[in-house]
Formats: sequence, structure tokens, C-alpha cells
Amino acid sequence: MDYRLETDLIGEKRVPRDAYYGIQSTRAYENFKITGLSLNGELIRAVCEVKKAAAISNRDAGVLDTNIANAIIEACDEIIEGKLHEQFIIDPIQGGAGTSINMNANEVIANRAIEILGEEKGDYSIVHPNDHVNNCQSTNDVIPTAGKIAIMRLLDKAIMSLKKLDLALKDKAIEFDGIIKMGRTQMQDAIPIRLGQEFKAYSCAIERDIERISKVRENLNRLNLGGTAIGTALNANKEYFKTVVSNLSEITGLNLRRADNLIDATQNLDIFVEVSGAIKTCAVNLSKISNDLRLMSSGPRTGFGEINLPPRQNGSSIMPGKVNPVIPEVMNQIAFNIIGNDLTITMAVEAGQLELNAFCPIIFYKLFESIETLTNGVETLVENCIKGITANKERCEALVNNSIGIITSICPYVGYKKATIIANKALETGETVKNIIINEKIMEPSKLQEILDPISMTEIG
Amino acid sequence: MDYRLETDLIGEKRVPRDAYYGIQSTRAYENFKITGLSLNGELIRAVCEVKKAAAISNRDAGVLDTNIANAIIEACDEIIEGKLHEQFIIDPIQGGAGTSINMNANEVIANRAIEILGEEKGDYSIVHPNDHVNNCQSTNDVIPTAGKIAIMRLLDKAIMSLKKLDLALKDKAIEFDGIIKMGRTQMQDAIPIRLGQEFKAYSCAIERDIERISKVRENLNRLNLGGTAIGTALNANKEYFKTVVSNLSEITGLNLRRADNLIDATQNLDIFVEVSGAIKTCAVNLSKISNDLRLMSSGPRTGFGEINLPPRQNGSSIMPGKVNPVIPEVMNQIAFNIIGNDLTITMAVEAGQLELNAFCPIIFYKLFESIETLTNGVETLVENCIKGITANKERCEALVNNSIGIITSICPYVGYKKATIIANKALETGETVKNIIINEKIMEPSKLQEILDPISMTEIG
Amino acid sequence: MDYRLETDLIGEKRVPRDAYYGIQSTRAYENFKITGLSLNGELIRAVCEVKKAAAISNRDAGVLDTNIANAIIEACDEIIEGKLHEQFIIDPIQGGAGTSINMNANEVIANRAIEILGEEKGDYSIVHPNDHVNNCQSTNDVIPTAGKIAIMRLLDKAIMSLKKLDLALKDKAIEFDGIIKMGRTQMQDAIPIRLGQEFKAYSCAIERDIERISKVRENLNRLNLGGTAIGTALNANKEYFKTVVSNLSEITGLNLRRADNLIDATQNLDIFVEVSGAIKTCAVNLSKISNDLRLMSSGPRTGFGEINLPPRQNGSSIMPGKVNPVIPEVMNQIAFNIIGNDLTITMAVEAGQLELNAFCPIIFYKLFESIETLTNGVETLVENCIKGITANKERCEALVNNSIGIITSICPYVGYKKATIIANKALETGETVKNIIINEKIMEPSKLQEILDPISMTEIG
Amino acid sequence: MDYRLETDLIGEKRVPRDAYYGIQSTRAYENFKITGLSLNGELIRAVCEVKKAAAISNRDAGVLDTNIANAIIEACDEIIEGKLHEQFIIDPIQGGAGTSINMNANEVIANRAIEILGEEKGDYSIVHPNDHVNNCQSTNDVIPTAGKIAIMRLLDKAIMSLKKLDLALKDKAIEFDGIIKMGRTQMQDAIPIRLGQEFKAYSCAIERDIERISKVRENLNRLNLGGTAIGTALNANKEYFKTVVSNLSEITGLNLRRADNLIDATQNLDIFVEVSGAIKTCAVNLSKISNDLRLMSSGPRTGFGEINLPPRQNGSSIMPGKVNPVIPEVMNQIAFNIIGNDLTITMAVEAGQLELNAFCPIIFYKLFESIETLTNGVETLVENCIKGITANKERCEALVNNSIGIITSICPYVGYKKATIIANKALETGETVKNIIINEKIMEPSKLQEILDPISMTEIG
Repeated sequence: MDYRLETDLIGEKRVPRDAYYGIQSTRAYENFKITGLSLNGELIRAVCEVKKAAAISNRDAGVLDTNIANAIIEACDEIIEGKLHEQFIIDPIQGGAGTSINMNANEVIANRAIEILGEEKGDYSIVHPNDHVNNCQSTNDVIPTAGKIAIMRLLDKAIMSLKKLDLALKDKAIEFDGIIKMGRTQMQDAIPIRLGQEFKAYSCAIERDIERISKVRENLNRLNLGGTAIGTALNANKEYFKTVVSNLSEITGLNLRRADNLIDATQNLDIFVEVSGAIKTCAVNLSKISNDLRLMSSGPRTGFGEINLPPRQNGSSIMPGKVNPVIPEVMNQIAFNIIGNDLTITMAVEAGQLELNAFCPIIFYKLFESIETLTNGVETLVENCIKGITANKERCEALVNNSIGIITSICPYVGYKKATIIANKALETGETVKNIIINEKIMEPSKLQEILDPISMTEIG
Repeated sequence: MDYRLETDLIGEKRVPRDAYYGIQSTRAYENFKITGLSLNGELIRAVCEVKKAAAISNRDAGVLDTNIANAIIEACDEIIEGKLHEQFIIDPIQGGAGTSINMNANEVIANRAIEILGEEKGDYSIVHPNDHVNNCQSTNDVIPTAGKIAIMRLLDKAIMSLKKLDLALKDKAIEFDGIIKMGRTQMQDAIPIRLGQEFKAYSCAIERDIERISKVRENLNRLNLGGTAIGTALNANKEYFKTVVSNLSEITGLNLRRADNLIDATQNLDIFVEVSGAIKTCAVNLSKISNDLRLMSSGPRTGFGEINLPPRQNGSSIMPGKVNPVIPEVMNQIAFNIIGNDLTITMAVEAGQLELNAFCPIIFYKLFESIETLTNGVETLVENCIKGITANKERCEALVNNSIGIITSICPYVGYKKATIIANKALETGETVKNIIINEKIMEPSKLQEILDPISMTEIG
Repeated sequence: MDYRLETDLIGEKRVPRDAYYGIQSTRAYENFKITGLSLNGELIRAVCEVKKAAAISNRDAGVLDTNIANAIIEACDEIIEGKLHEQFIIDPIQGGAGTSINMNANEVIANRAIEILGEEKGDYSIVHPNDHVNNCQSTNDVIPTAGKIAIMRLLDKAIMSLKKLDLALKDKAIEFDGIIKMGRTQMQDAIPIRLGQEFKAYSCAIERDIERISKVRENLNRLNLGGTAIGTALNANKEYFKTVVSNLSEITGLNLRRADNLIDATQNLDIFVEVSGAIKTCAVNLSKISNDLRLMSSGPRTGFGEINLPPRQNGSSIMPGKVNPVIPEVMNQIAFNIIGNDLTITMAVEAGQLELNAFCPIIFYKLFESIETLTNGVETLVENCIKGITANKERCEALVNNSIGIITSICPYVGYKKATIIANKALETGETVKNIIINEKIMEPSKLQEILDPISMTEIG
Repeated sequence: MDYRLETDLIGEKRVPRDAYYGIQSTRAYENFKITGLSLNGELIRAVCEVKKAAAISNRDAGVLDTNIANAIIEACDEIIEGKLHEQFIIDPIQGGAGTSINMNANEVIANRAIEILGEEKGDYSIVHPNDHVNNCQSTNDVIPTAGKIAIMRLLDKAIMSLKKLDLALKDKAIEFDGIIKMGRTQMQDAIPIRLGQEFKAYSCAIERDIERISKVRENLNRLNLGGTAIGTALNANKEYFKTVVSNLSEITGLNLRRADNLIDATQNLDIFVEVSGAIKTCAVNLSKISNDLRLMSSGPRTGFGEINLPPRQNGSSIMPGKVNPVIPEVMNQIAFNIIGNDLTITMAVEAGQLELNAFCPIIFYKLFESIETLTNGVETLVENCIKGITANKERCEALVNNSIGIITSICPYVGYKKATIIANKALETGETVKNIIINEKIMEPSKLQEILDPISMTEIG
């Protein structure tokens, strides 16, 4: 291969001649062979949006030559559109607070800008990664800013998926509204409920998650861009400082503003614990719903058998005809993963020291994974599970009629003690509660009928 | 000892004659010898406030005899005032969704009401724990409701403590505003900052925590009271249903309202993950601040030595004169515990099944502990640490002057490459950056003086 | 109250005249009002065993006057027997690496020894907490040593309980060996299993836990006693150093030895992550077993209904006759708590810095809780649940006969594809697999009978 | 593209004509678009080793035609060698207990075997994925078995890396043995230690990790292969059953044996909590060591400045000359991730139900990540950090001489009280402890010299 020679603080190093990345990216690549994976595309895009906003502000402030600025802007636009992403060679798990990501961007943009200006890659006298591309910036304000933009966009997708789920659940709530089934508490027969009410309750939980995630997404818009290394804005030009955030708002189409205290915003990353917490809470609800779906569809013959999940694939390599609740199961696993990620994020945020939290890379890596897998999980849950659920109406009703739990409805009329005796008798003899009450003339059949009406048992007038 | 005989579903059992609790409490006590600890007093109080509200609503709805109701109300008032708490004998970690707590309350209230009505404890024909005290209620709406009330009150105390901390930090921010010190990123010398700015940044993080906790406290006020066993309000009298929540608001002095969907509110306990998440996020910030205090006060001779924490106790049983940062250390440990509790709560909420989450007891136990230890930790942090912190102004300044990090301020004037050379030279020779610049005539001393002005280095005009 | 005046590094302070604790305990008490709870009795006992061993070694080495030593030993013996525990006033969550516990012990022992020598409490010229009681010791070797001894004893109780559980499960394995029931994978009907085999499998998991916990208990016996402040044994007399661990072995009756590297043993507390990990793994198995018990006993009418847990208490305050699986539920909650504690312990161990881990107090507090609640949970699980479980033999068999899952046994004879068709037909028509096979003459009834023999379906010859 | 049509339980589906995977893989691919990542190569390899062992056993038992068996074996060998891995198209996070992985392997192997036998892919009458490739097997014994093999191999690499680390630390222990430095407890100056002793202590912790991981690796060798769906060995031929594990031992070169109880081994996956626990414990030690390295190398001018980490890359995009401890920082982040993964694994194992744990996929995904990132992190830690560490000997010594902590050595000669007074005086006046002692004639200079000898202060004779 053909190489060019580059130099930095540490010394000289060969870089492939056609590479847009440079010496610092190369060193970082070699230092951090950890996961073998690539940076999230949304992060690459957002970093370049920041670089573009900075170039515009620097140009307008007169601290960056117009030609250079415009070349930088053009290079950024290309990457924002999706080009050159393969030039981002750094592992998502890396030391430093994202300096390697920032320098990878600075180098790729500089070299592409050099090309645009008609010169050869590596000639940093034309466009310099630090002096020009990174002008008025520091890793410590660029990377948290870019991370927040990426997260806002990923959250938007998550919210969209959750809205689909909410709708699908509400559709099922309507579809199943007339189906009476046994309610269970602590896995024991309790009192009746309508199947539609179950799905309505799930949709309420999801609504709450949407609201929670939407609120936390709003809190993300307070950026530390302009604060440079530690939030004191050292080396940030005043004119640049005034315009860079509004430029970034315009470029991204997002409503962004500067944090009130840039020192705080640079060293305290609690916002990411908050975001992860909202995602985790949603995952907890999704896992609970998935568990319920697996319980209610258990069977087909020896379980609860109240609903049927749509068959999506053969369930077993050995057991013919077996279909498993694989979609809820994948949702459970996504939830377990998100809960684990939340812990990693919590520890990383807690580990910040003095003027900086150096653990942005792992925070972003896990947060991106949490949000994206949640979104993907919800998508498959809606399309491949919820929408196709059917109910076994007759079995649901039969279970209610055969249950002892309906005794609770009788309790106000006969007292807790007498009701307990009837319940025990039903349990011991196998008789239905209804029959005992009628046979022992405890209550008029018509009165009993009225009390045991499905609607009146499941709704307060 | 003298006993009375009581009976329940399981059979007969002896209960101490002078006990206000009854057979069900006794069974639960025997079943759950887990921690040996007592229920939180705030929970006992809140349960009895619920019972009182229910008695009023039942009386006014005409489903509970006035004399009985009034006796129940009187009994509740006594417990709310702090009496009879020793009659609550159940372990905080217990099976069931709080049935044992609810029945313990029902039995104590019933027996006390019986006494008030002039009869003998144990004669449940007078006042029955289930039929009268628990009328129109279920464990599954009473206990989550009471838990929320208790948590709201504990959060109020936490917020008060955090406000004290915020003030103490802001006082220090003003006191230390004129002290220039070295900022550090990734534990390496970075660029200067003023000590007051550090404390200001901490106060910003705490402000955010206060806001976060206050918001989540508001979300707690949606109750499932009236939903009875599974949120369908089975056996709840309509008049009772209409008034019980507003009665409870009045009794507690809290702004309470009914949840929109009682089925959801009974089975999905994500609100507690949300509360725990806000507390955890605060703990993360507190732990980070504590770590910083321990770093900045490290020494006295071989560490950073920038600040002094007030000595609170001998630090060592073997090393004379040693004083340790014990107050920040206890804050760290409280934070670790809160983070662990958050996990326990998350798992317990995830484990809800169908119509109920049966794991309220552990959720409340850990959440109470998290909030109370946070409050207590913050109290000692404010009083025994923050307020007494002093600064070593001269050492702080000397470290800045001797540092290489101030080269960053020079960078815009000489370029990144030249600046790197100066920095390396300083590092190798031990000279100060200032001297090199002046000796090598890189910059006029007066210009240099201007650039290195503490205020201009730490604030954008 | 009557006071005496004491003095330390910080200054003067009043201490109740009849208190055995002194000024340092008092300061620590005031600094750490966190949980309001007391130290674990096993820890108090173990600290005093260490103090006794040290006094003997010091006396025999000639560095401690015989009279003083003997008085110290006598004082220790009293506390080891359970006296004076109320004089230990420090909160279990405290700053410092246990200095407050150590000094609390030093002060109580010193004052009791002073009394024994006929003088008045507080006259430390007779017996000094540091110079005499703490002679040749540091908090940093005393407290980890004492913690390990306490943990070993708590683990012994846990192992004993787990052995009872193992036996109870094996008894049930024999009792239920003849009961064929449906096996379920992914909550879907799979292939038959015998109920006894289920319980046997549980017992195997518990056996593995016992082995795991026993091994980790052995690893606990490597002590850093003699290392003093940082493991370099500074100020430890050589003769003392040689004998103190073997003296401690004799006093405790435990097989103890000195760690190979005392510096490592003082700063790296990974052993406690290891212990907590073994306890956590056991909790995971217990929680899984508890979940299974709750599933298999779900019903009585609308669930799996394969087994009955012994009724232990009324299950509901509103639903008459309801009995809930409260014992497995408490086990689940204990498990969630242990998993949360494991995280707290992990974070605390990770947070050690340089020569010391200052977070022993929280590590011990949570580890003691984990082990003790596990033990208590297992005790109630054995006595109040496992031993009383009964099986619904007929229902178990009926479910198997009615299931589609037995088609798997036929698969080798007809191929996966044909078997799938039969299974689907059974599912659609509601017919049994058996009937379809016989009616369609796919197999001879006698052959079918042979294949579907309960034993041959559940055991390889 | 060109397609072939395949059929399964669910219906028909098009598969690319040249694909080796089939309809079931395709469905699974569509159901689980979660991470977008591929299966671990070690898992693919291990699954095919299991398939090969099964084919040999089936052939030798006479239940699989020799030609078919040999074609299957040949196909397996190709995949084991690294071919066709791109045909494994399933997401690592997936529903089902690994059925999709197993069927993906069955289909790829079947189609490759069909080709080998000269027929066209998709003609499963020649070699059937279930009836032939999966003969006598179930996902539920194949996948846990393959996972264990993959983990054993990954652990072997981890152990090799840890051994390198152990050696590198021991080398540094020797190199730095003569350097006296200040020991610090609770971040406060304590008593002297030698820098070599620090590194020796680290190596001891790593030794313990190696031992711990090695032991748990041994426990992994107990397989449930032969147990088929639920451990009852249904449909496993007896001759196959006898030979398949020893065949697998031979193929893999690993010492494998069958678990004592296959039902237990199928449903209880606590072994993976155990493995993850050992990895986590190691991560905790690595994180603590990394923190220490970052503390000791803090500076260069305003921190501890005792050691220098080798510069690996520019530390800052804005601060010239700054070099950061990026390698320890990446180790910290890996540790946080492993601790999070441990939680995910714990939850997944806890969530097993009845005869199966359906969450193998997430367990393996996270466990593979934990082990591989640990290995990779340790590799870069050794090569890019530990080996290049240098010490600032003079600064280390100066800090000791200037410290107050050495007063502890004097304490046995003057008593705790007098020593405290000297320490306080030094602190207040800024004088050295030595000078005070000599000036105040507390001790002879020669005696003092002897006491303060570096070796005698740091080692017991």
C-alpha cells in the first residue's frame, strides 16, 4: 500500500495515502481494538453538523478564512449526507472523552476540505484539523453536543414506534372489549376483567412512557457547545460564541439552546442517566407486558390458553407443531439488556472527575444501543405480535364461570366470613360457586345473575 | 401470657390477649422473619389515613354504621398521631402485595375501635377488620396509595435537605470566587478555573436534581384508591368511590387525585422506577461531588491540597494526626446503596404479573431507605462538611502558575503546533511556560500578562 | 445526665459518665445518622475476638503489661458472650474504612478493662484505647479480618439452611416420582416429565449452590491481620506478628491463615465480590424455583393447578377464600434485594483507591443482609412451603393425555413433517393426538401405548 | 434475484436460490432485526462441532445413513474451518432459546451436505435439517452445549492475556522495588510504601483472578447434550447418547463430560452467572488498578506525579501537549460495561421458567462481549500502558520526606497522644516531622534515621 507520513506530539507515523483520516485516528485505532464495531452513524453525522456550525460561526466572526471555511462546510455536508463514514475507524469503546472521535472527524474533514481546495491529503498547511476544523472548539464541548443531537434523533424514532404500539394496543382494547376473562393476582384466580381492559391498561402504561421519554428528550437540548475544554469558553471567540448554537439549531432542524452553566454542563452528565432511566422504565413496562402475553398465551392445551399470538416461525427443532412466543421473548431480552446498560451508564456518569467526565464513549455506545434496540423491539412487537393476537373467547368465559373468584362479588351481600365458607366448599367439592349459592338458597338466581353480569363486575357505573 | 383465640381461613390461633393485632398479623409475623426490622412509620401513618378516609366515605355513603365509622376514625387518628405503632409487627420484606400490612392495620384499628366502643378486643362482631375497616377496599388499592403518600412526604424532606445543600454550595461559590486554581480533565492538568466556579457548578447539578425530584413527586399523586382488587372497583360503593380520594386529600393535606385508568394503576408500578431513578440520578451527582471533594482535599502534603474539609473525627486508630474525608465517604456509600436499591426496585416492578404487582413490600422498603439515607447523607454533608470547607488559596495559585496547561491560552496566538513544542519543552526542562515564552521572545510580557489574567482565562466577556 | 469530659485530635467533648464508649464513638455517632440501625452482632463479636487475640499476642510478646492485657481479654470475653452490645452506637453506614467501629470497640474495651482494674471509666492512663487495646493494629487490618470472620459464621448458617432445603426437595422428588405431568418450554406445552424429576432438578441446583458457597467460604480465611495500616506491618511487633493469627484461629475455632501478600489483601477486596456473587447465584436459583412453584400452583381453577402450596395465611383482604403463594413471593423479593446488594458491593469494591478500600462498612452491611435474608428466606421456604406441597396427580395426568406435545415421541417414527401435520390437525380440531393416530391408522395402538409410557418418555433406559 | 420456494409449519416462503440458509433462518432474520450484528464466530464453530459429533454418533448407532452422515460431517468441517459464516444471518438478540441459531446451522449444513451429495440446495428429501442434521438433538441441548464450548475457548484467551498482565506487573514490581513513595489511605497521606510493592499487590489480585476464572472454566465442561428438549433425552437414541459427548470431546480437543442431571442442566443456567461473576470480579480489580494508575500519574505538574504512563496519542484537540491516561480509561469503561452485562445475564438466568431458560441468546451475547472486551482491554493495557510506565523516583522520595505520615513510625516510641501533637504542629507550621523531632530533642537523630529507613518502614523483618 501507498503511505504518507504524518507527525504529532508522539512522533511520526505512516498513514495510507488515500485515507482521509490521519495520524491521530490511526493511533486511536491501534490503541482501542476493543469491540471491533463501528461508531453509530447518527453520531458521525451530528459531529459533522457541529463542525459545520462552528465553521460558519468562525467564518462570520472573521477568525476563519472564507475559502477554508467553505471547504470545511462542503466536506461536512458530504459526511452528513452519508459519505465517508467508513473513514471513521475508531472503536466505540475508547479511552479519552471522545478526543479520538473528534480528531477522527477533524482529520477526515480537513483532508476532504484540502482535496476540495485542490491540494493533496495530508498537507495540513492548507486546512489544519486542530487550528481550522476544531477552531474555537474542544472535544469536551463538541462530543457531548453531538451525542445529545444523535440521542434526540434516536429518541424520535423510539417515540414513533411506541406510538404505533400504543395504537395497536388500543385497537386490541376495542376488539376485545366484550370478552370477559378471569383476572389473576399473585398468579391466583381473583375476579373477572374484560380482555379489552387488559390491553387498554397496557396502552396507558405505554402512553406514560411516551410522555416520559418526550419530556426527557426536551431536557437534552441544553448544550455546552462554546464552553471548550472545561466550560470556561477559553479560546472561544466571542462572536463565534454568540452564533454557534443558533447555527447548529438551523443546521439540525432541532430546537437547541445553550446550557445556563457551561462548567456544570461539561462535568456533570446526569442528563444521560435521566435519559437512560426513561428508556429503562419503558423497558420494564414492555417486559411486564411481554410476560403477560406469554402467560395468557401459554398452552395451547395445558396453560392459560386465553389468547393466541400469531405464529411467526417454527418453535422447535425437535417438537413438531410447536410455536413459541418468540417476539415477546426477544422483547424481554432487550429489556434485560437495557437494564444492564442503564447500570453501565450510571457507573460511567458517577465516575466523572473534576472538570470532565471522560467516559462519554461508553455512555453513548450503550445509550444508542438501548434506544435502538428498544425501537427495533417495539417494531417487531407491533408488527409480528400485537396486531395478530386473537382471543379464545369461549375458553375465557368458561374459566370465569368455573372460577371461585367470583365469590368476591357476593361478599358484600353475605359478609367475608360466610363468603369464605362458600369459597372453601367450592374448592373442596369442585362445585361452582353459582351452584352452591343457588342450591343452598343463599341468594335468588335473578339477583345472582345481576351481580355476576360481566359489565357490572368489571366497571363502576 | 394471656391469650385469646381467633379464627381465619386457615384455622384457629392464639393471640396475646392485650394485642391489638390479630390472627392474620400473627400468621404473617411467623411467615416472614426476614430482616427483623419494623415497618416505616410513615407507611403506618399513611395506611391509617387511607383507612380514615375510607371510613368517612363509607359512613357518608351510608354503608357503614356511624358509630362504627366514628370509632374507626378515632382509632386511625391515634395511630396517625404516633400511637400503637409497636402493634405493627410485620417484617418489611414479606410475601403478598402488602396484604399483611393491610390486615395488620385492619386488625389494630378494629380492635382499638372495639375498645373505644366499650367492648373487648377480639370481638369482631362489633367491628370487623374486613367487613368494616377494610370496607370497599382491597390491599391492592390501599397499599400502593399509602406507599405513595409516604413517599411524597419522604421526598419533601429530601428536597428540603437538597435545598440546604444548594444554598451551602452557592455560599461557597461566592466565598471562593476569587481563587484561581488548576482545572483538570482526565486527571491531567488542563486549564485554569476559579474555585468558586467549581462550587457553582455543583450547585447547578443539585438544582437540577431538586427540579427532577419535585417533578416526579408530582406524578406520584395519581392514586388507584377505589379500584379495589384489580382496578375494576368491584365491591366499591359508588358514593364511597366518588368521595374517598378527596377525603384523603383533606386528611393528608396533599394534593391527590385518582389515576385515569385504575386497572393500569394497579398492575403497572413504573412510577416507582421513575421515583427511584430521580433519586439515583441525584445520588450519582452527590457521589461525583464527593469524589471531587476527596480529590481536591487529598494531602495534606502529598496530594492536591487545594481545599480542606473540616476535621470531624480522628481518622485513624494507628496514624496520629490523620484526618479523613469521612463525610464525603459516607455519601459515596449511600450512593452505591441507592444505585443497588434502584436495581432491586427495577426488578420488582418488572416482575409484576397480570392484574397485580405482588412486590410492593420490597419496592417500598428499598425506596424508603433510598430517600431517607439520601436525606440523612445530605444533612451531614451540608453541616459537617460543605459549610466548613476552607481553601488553600496560595497553593491553588502556585499550582496554576507552575502548570503547563496555561499554554492553551497562548495557542490561538501561536498555533497548535508551536504551542505543543513549548509545552513539551516546559515538561522536559521543568521551566515554566511563562518563562519560556518571555525568554524566547515569543510574546510581549504585557500581552502575556493580559492573556493569563485569571478572570479572562475563566470567563467569556 | 451526668457527663465526663474527653479529648481527642479535634478537641474536647462530653460523654455520658456511665458510657463505655468514648469521645471518638460519640463523634462518629453524630457524623453518621444515616440508617438509625445497629451494627450486626456477629461483627461486634468478631472485632472483640480480634482484640482478644491481639492482647494475648502483645502480652506474650512483652509489649503489653500482663495486667492490662488480662483486663482487656476479660472485657473482650464479656462482649463476645453478648454483653455491652448496646454500647456500640455507630451506624452501619459510615465514612472511613471502619475506623469508627474499631474505635468504638477500642473505647468500650478500654473502659471496661479500666473498670475491671478498679479504676474509673475515662481514665485512659490506665488502659488506652489506641496505645493498649489497638496496640500493633490498625482499623485497616482489624476490620476486614473481623468482617471475614462474621461472614464465615453467617455463611455457615446459610449452608445449613440450604442443606435443609436440599433434603426437603429430595423428599418431594421421591414422593412425586410417579406423577407424570406436562413439561413446558417457553411457557408452551412441550413433552412429559415426572413431577418428582422437577423437584430433583431443583435439588441439584441447590446442591451446586451449597458447593459454590462452601468453596468461597474457604477462600475467606486468608486474613490481613498483622498488616496494620497498609499491609506493610508498620508498628507491628515481630513476635506479635508471628502469633496473632494462630491465636485468633484458636479463639474463633475457625481455620484461619494469613494472606500471602498483606498489601494486596488490604487494598483489594475482590473476595467480597466473590462471596456476594455466590450468594447472588444462589438467589437466582431460588427465585427461579419460586417462580416455578407459583406457576405450577397457579389456579386453583383457571391456572396450571398441578400442585398446591400449603395455605399459610389469608391471601386477600377483599377476596374470600383466596390463598396466595406468599412464601415463594417473599423468596423472590429477597432475591431481588440480594441482586441489588451485589451491585452495591461491586461498586464499593471497585471504588477502592491506592492503599485502602475505604468502603468496608457498606460492603459488610449489605453482605450481612444478603446472607441473613437468604438464610431466613430459605428457612421459611422449607418449613412453610416445600414440606407441605401436595400434587394434583389426576389433573397432571389429564393435561398430559390431552396435550399435543406428546407428538414429539411419535416424531422418530413418522418424521418431522408428518408429525407437524398431525399436531396441526389436533390443534385445529381439538382432538387428541392419540385419537388421530389411531383413527388414521398411523400406528398400532399397542405400539403407541408403548411409546407413550410415562417412564419411557421421561428417562433414557 | 433468483429464488427457491420452501415450506414450513407457517407456510411457504421464498429463499434466495444460492443461499445455504433456508426458510426458518429467513423467518428468524425477519422477526429479529434488533442489533444488526452477526453471531459470534466461536458460537457458529461450536454449534457445528456439536452437529459433527451428533452425526458421527448417529451414523455409528445406525440411525443415520452413512452417506448422509459423512456429507453432514464434511459440511460441518468446512464451517468449523471458517467457511460459510456469512450464511448465519440471525441477530444475536433473538426470541426462542436459540432455535433460530440451531435451525440456521441445520439448514446451512443440510444444504451444503445436499450439494456435497451432488443435489440441489433446498431438496430436503436428500438431507433434512431436522430429521438428519438435528437427529437426536434439540435446540435445548445443542445451544447451551455450543455456548459452553465457545465460552471455554474465549476464556482461554482471556486467561492468556491476564497471564501477560501478571508478568508485566511483576516486572514492574522488580523494576520499582527500590523506590520509596507515600502510601495513601482514603486519599490522605498515610505511611510509606515502595512503588514496587504497589505493582506486586496488583499482580497478586490478577493472579487471584486467573485462578478464579480457571476454576469456573472447569465447571463449564458439564454438558446437557443428549438431554434433547427438556433433559429427559426423549428421542435420543441410546447408542447415540452413549457416544456423543466423548465424540465432541475429541472433536473440540476439550475435556468435556455430561452433567449428572440433564433436566437440571437444561433449565438452570446458574453456571453462566458464575462465569460472568468471575469475569466481573476481574473487571473490578482491573478498574481499581486503572484508577490507581490514573491517580499516581495525575499531573504532570499539579497532581501526584509519581509515575508516567507512556504517551499513546494526543490527549486533547484544544490543549497542546496534553497527554491523557487513555488506556486505563478504556479499561474502566470496559469494566463498567462488564458490570452492566453481568446484571443482564443475572436477570436472564433468573427469568428461566419450568423446563427451559429461553434466554440463552442474550446470555451468550453479553457473556461473549464481556470476555472478549476484557481480553482486548487487557492486551492494550499490557502493551500500551503497563510495559511503558516509568517512575519519578525523586519526586516520590521528596513527597515521603515532606510528609507528616511518617509520624506513625515514631508513635510506638512516643505514644499516640504525643505523636498527635507533633503531627498537628507540623501541619500548622509547615515544618517537617523530622525537624520537629530533632529540634525538640524528642529523639536522637541516629535513632530517627534508623526508624525512618525505607525498608524497615515497609517490611516486617
